[in-house]
Amino acid sequence: MILGNDPILLTPGPLSTSPETRQAMLRDWGSWDAAFNQMTQTVCTDLVEIVHGENDYVCVPMQGSGTFAVEAAIGTLVPRNGCVLVPNNGAYCTRIIKILQRMGIAYVELALREDEPVSAAAIEDAFNGDTRITHVAQVHLETSAGLLNPLDDIAALCQRHGKSLIVDAMSSFGALPIDLRKGGIDALVSASGKCLEGVPGMGFVIVRRSVLLASEGQSPSLALDLHDQYTYMQKTTQWRFTPPTHVVAALRNALDRFIAEGGQPARGARYQQNCKTLVDAMKTLGFEPFLPAEVQAPVIVTFHAPKDPAWRFADFYAAVRDAGYVLYPGKLTQVETFRVGCIGAIDANELHNAVAAIDRSLKKLGVRVR
Amino acid sequence: MILGNDPILLTPGPLSTSPETRQAMLRDWGSWDAAFNQMTQTVCTDLVEIVHGENDYVCVPMQGSGTFAVEAAIGTLVPRNGCVLVPNNGAYCTRIIKILQRMGIAYVELALREDEPVSAAAIEDAFNGDTRITHVAQVHLETSAGLLNPLDDIAALCQRHGKSLIVDAMSSFGALPIDLRKGGIDALVSASGKCLEGVPGMGFVIVRRSVLLASEGQSPSLALDLHDQYTYMQKTTQWRFTPPTHVVAALRNALDRFIAEGGQPARGARYQQNCKTLVDAMKTLGFEPFLPAEVQAPVIVTFHAPKDPAWRFADFYAAVRDAGYVLYPGKLTQVETFRVGCIGAIDANELHNAVAAIDRSLKKLGVRVR
Ligand SMILES: Cc1ncc(COP(=O)(O)O)c(C=O)c1O
Ligand SMILES: Cc1ncc(COP(=O)(O)O)c(C=O)c1O
Repeated sequence: MILGNDPILLTPGPLSTSPETRQAMLRDWGSWDAAFNQMTQTVCTDLVEIVHGENDYVCVPMQGSGTFAVEAAIGTLVPRNGCVLVPNNGAYCTRIIKILQRMGIAYVELALREDEPVSAAAIEDAFNGDTRITHVAQVHLETSAGLLNPLDDIAALCQRHGKSLIVDAMSSFGALPIDLRKGGIDALVSASGKCLEGVPGMGFVIVRRSVLLASEGQSPSLALDLHDQYTYMQKTTQWRFTPPTHVVAALRNALDRFIAEGGQPARGARYQQNCKTLVDAMKTLGFEPFLPAEVQAPVIVTFHAPKDPAWRFADFYAAVRDAGYVLYPGKLTQVETFRVGCIGAIDANELHNAVAAIDRSLKKLGVRVR
Repeated sequence: MILGNDPILLTPGPLSTSPETRQAMLRDWGSWDAAFNQMTQTVCTDLVEIVHGENDYVCVPMQGSGTFAVEAAIGTLVPRNGCVLVPNNGAYCTRIIKILQRMGIAYVELALREDEPVSAAAIEDAFNGDTRITHVAQVHLETSAGLLNPLDDIAALCQRHGKSLIVDAMSSFGALPIDLRKGGIDALVSASGKCLEGVPGMGFVIVRRSVLLASEGQSPSLALDLHDQYTYMQKTTQWRFTPPTHVVAALRNALDRFIAEGGQPARGARYQQNCKTLVDAMKTLGFEPFLPAEVQAPVIVTFHAPKDPAWRFADFYAAVRDAGYVLYPGKLTQVETFRVGCIGAIDANELHNAVAAIDRSLKKLGVRVR
């Protein structure tokens, strides 16, 4: 099965990891064993440091995909009688609303276009318009379009108004600067298989210790109870339920590589370079990014699909995959688009090659971009 | 890091997997890609076949540990106004009660000793004593002690009384015979990293299609909604949220090995031989199993700890680990015990070696068994 090269994943997680990270999964670990539990501990410590939370924050790992950690954060930290403001500019914001609906927690949706970042002013208006609001659930980087929301402004506003801010930083954590010392953020959620370049299988929540400790018994779910996971781990050093041992080992390796690369600034710079290379090269083929450059995060880029009637995404996807690159479909509700990720263990050279493969594929399919 | 041999895990998951199974994680897979989604599909088909559910059952995979799949099954399949009977002879039964308490679902506990299998008669008495009961949540193999409950009798009884039976078959699936054609079981829960010998990171629920389809909107959780996971997968072939791609690939390989070995009968026979070897050899050292032989499942064996005042589990564990074997602590509430697993990619020879290592360790520590 391992003949030749596998295609490169230009997708926002799972993504292409380094071979060393995958090789870290060649060992079995006992979940009760001290060696494994020390590994978990160092992973958590490193994750907190990446966002400068050393003093007041703890990291609680959670089995499952990123959504499981988002639901765990909301279910554990928002009281049943709370009310959550959800600025909505994409599918991952909508998913938070669905989670709140299932839990029966009140929410206020702040509807935005998919290319429109939320502003602190709009959030402030919402606070003034509905005094029930106790929490804000903010997606930092809306991966649906690749849109960046102004987290620092939002955090400062929440701090001023005394609202508790829960951030879905799934696709920004590790790539974009986040500094918890600035204040205003109570919880930050991400996962193993995104910009940290681990494999998928666990999420984590970096949460203000005092807020977590005050949340005992609040979660409607046992499996997704962050407080229970944390206190059990503090008492025993172990995960509450069987951990995804190999995924944790891969994340440990991925974090070693992250630190060796130079941490978030270096990771962010590489992705920025990847993104610029991608966008510039795609423009020469005639493709237009969906987002204006100033709100485009360097993680995933949405392009308008060609207007040519010969265009079919499925054919395009298959042809580019045969040429060695896995692309991503669009996730927007109104316009036809497709997406190309610029994250993972890849550099600008890979993006040049990918765009060359896209060019060849379009010619083969007889699709004109404009 | 990969110098010499890692210790063999004599633990009930994570356990020692075959090197080939771990090597299956050396590739990255796109979660949107047809190759990956076909792999998921074949995994699900094989899992249903292992328990002969081809006609009426579907397999719904679920990210996270086994507990996540147990909670998903209960939350999706039991209506809010249902009432669940929980025969309780160990920690995993108690965990089901905690899950029900969090969800606010009524339950009736049938309390048993940790060495006492439930009987169909006792369950029938409970039915007669409380007519609210709509469901039974039954742990097949209570891993706390290694105790086997009489699943066939229970399933027949539930069928006769029209009660919906949800089975936690976490540590029995693949090792012990389960035949859904006999009737009476609505859902069966297990996970990747137990007797199938995959790595941990996903669970699955094999559920009667008609029962699943009737459960729309019932789950209080979005992440753990089996109905939503299933219908999305039917529509798109994809997992709803990012799948643990490498864990799925490892499970695919582990299932290939399971089938090549001869399926459940062969897997069960190997574990039976492992268990007999372990118990016989431990008895020659003077150890007594906690359970009577007729209720001992061939998966994990609980032994009474030596009465010698020099005995300390932590020291014993460390010494045996240095000798190459990872044991498991006891999980019983009343008596001091420890546990030795007999599952994983190991055979009787490994168990002989493990008992020799236990013998040397005790001598080194100066602990007398009797
Ligand atoms: C912003 C954001 N939130 C949540 C998620 C959900 O994560 P997962 O698919 O791992 O559940 C994603 C996935 O890409 C994401 O980008
Ligand atoms: C019978 C039983 N149920 C549930 C579980 C929980 O599984 P997990 O630890 O993967 O959450 C286990 C784990 O060993 C088990 O043996």
